[in-house]
Amino acid sequence: MKDTRSRVIDASSTLFRRQGYAATGLKQIAADAPAPFGSIYHFFPGGKQQLAEEVIRSAGPWYGALVYDFFTGSSAEARDLPGVLTALFDSAAADLERSDYADACPIATVALEVAGTNEVLRRATADVFTEWIDAGSRLLSSRGLDAYQSRTLVLMLISTLEGAFVLSRSLRSIEPLHAAGAGLAGLAASMTA
Amino acid sequence: MKDTRSRVIDASSTLFRRQGYAATGLKQIAADAPAPFGSIYHFFPGGKQQLAEEVIRSAGPWYGALVYDFFTGSSAEARDLPGVLTALFDSAAADLERSDYADACPIATVALEVAGTNEVLRRATADVFTEWIDAGSRLLSSRGLDAYQSRTLVLMLISTLEGAFVLSRSLRSIEPLHAAGAGLAGLAASMTA
Repeated sequence: MKDTRSRVIDASSTLFRRQGYAATGLKQIAADAPAPFGSIYHFFPGGKQQLAEEVIRSAGPWYGALVYDFFTGSSAEARDLPGVLTALFDSAAADLERSDYADACPIATVALEVAGTNEVLRRATADVFTEWIDAGSRLLSSRGLDAYQSRTLVLMLISTLEGAFVLSRSLRSIEPLHAAGAGLAGLAASMTA
Repeated sequence: MKDTRSRVIDASSTLFRRQGYAATGLKQIAADAPAPFGSIYHFFPGGKQQLAEEVIRSAGPWYGALVYDFFTGSSAEARDLPGVLTALFDSAAADLERSDYADACPIATVALEVAGTNEVLRRATADVFTEWIDAGSRLLSSRGLDAYQSRTLVLMLISTLEGAFVLSRSLRSIEPLHAAGAGLAGLAASMTA
């Protein structure tokens, strides 16, 4: 079993991802971890906000690495850019279906909730998105796109993935994710033609 | 001044859109409307959930009509499909900036919060998305795309718009919306070439 602090982070991450920030209480986090209620304030004196900031900031590199592997893994080398994008969205669709439409982006729900109401957490989500955009631009540049094309396509990639998660979770269907993968692959093909 | 029931709906719609479902309490709705607290249960005996369902379901036709106008308005007739998509995203970006990054999609925040936790509200969001997808497919078919292209492009359009709203609100920048418009226009151009 992981240590208490890690279990609290993991339980928080799952709850924020599945039901959002406002709906998640520290009592539920303590019950799900499981961890003594008092241990949450021991590890996170700033309470729920500090916990959420840590969850958001740690999700950045973790999910960034998942996407990075699609572009650089051994099977990726055999694929052209449209093939990489299709494989990425197919995998996201399979993961979402496997979790019964529960586990999509770790930060999008919180990002929408806090954008206008909590500047500390908004900044945390903005830092993560900025990191994904910058890293993605570099990956796409290394695939032969120019600077403008790379930035446009990575912004499209992240936007389309986030939005397709909204639709797929709401509709309980992976069709939006598959359509997004097909559309992005088509766009990438037209850029690299 | 509008009647009490309409003011309660409008205040709820604004609060759900800006901060989500869980963070919004009936006291805040009554204060913002303004309306006597008791009048909320008079008009909405089912309380917050009934109010949210009504807000979601009424947002569907309202925002659907906004998008419809881009495809059918007098200035739209002079435009090709990529031009329509660019104009739509430019307008969404201008509106978001004008509201200081507060007013984006009326249902996405709630959709993510409730997808796994409230089946009544999940169905309401799914019905609205389905209506948008069906109406959008018909509009795109009338622009010369085949059935598969129309469905792929409308799913891309809604996903990309929803996701670009997440990024734009988090980053407090309209760049993601402009990139999404440019990317979609490029995809539409490659489909109609």
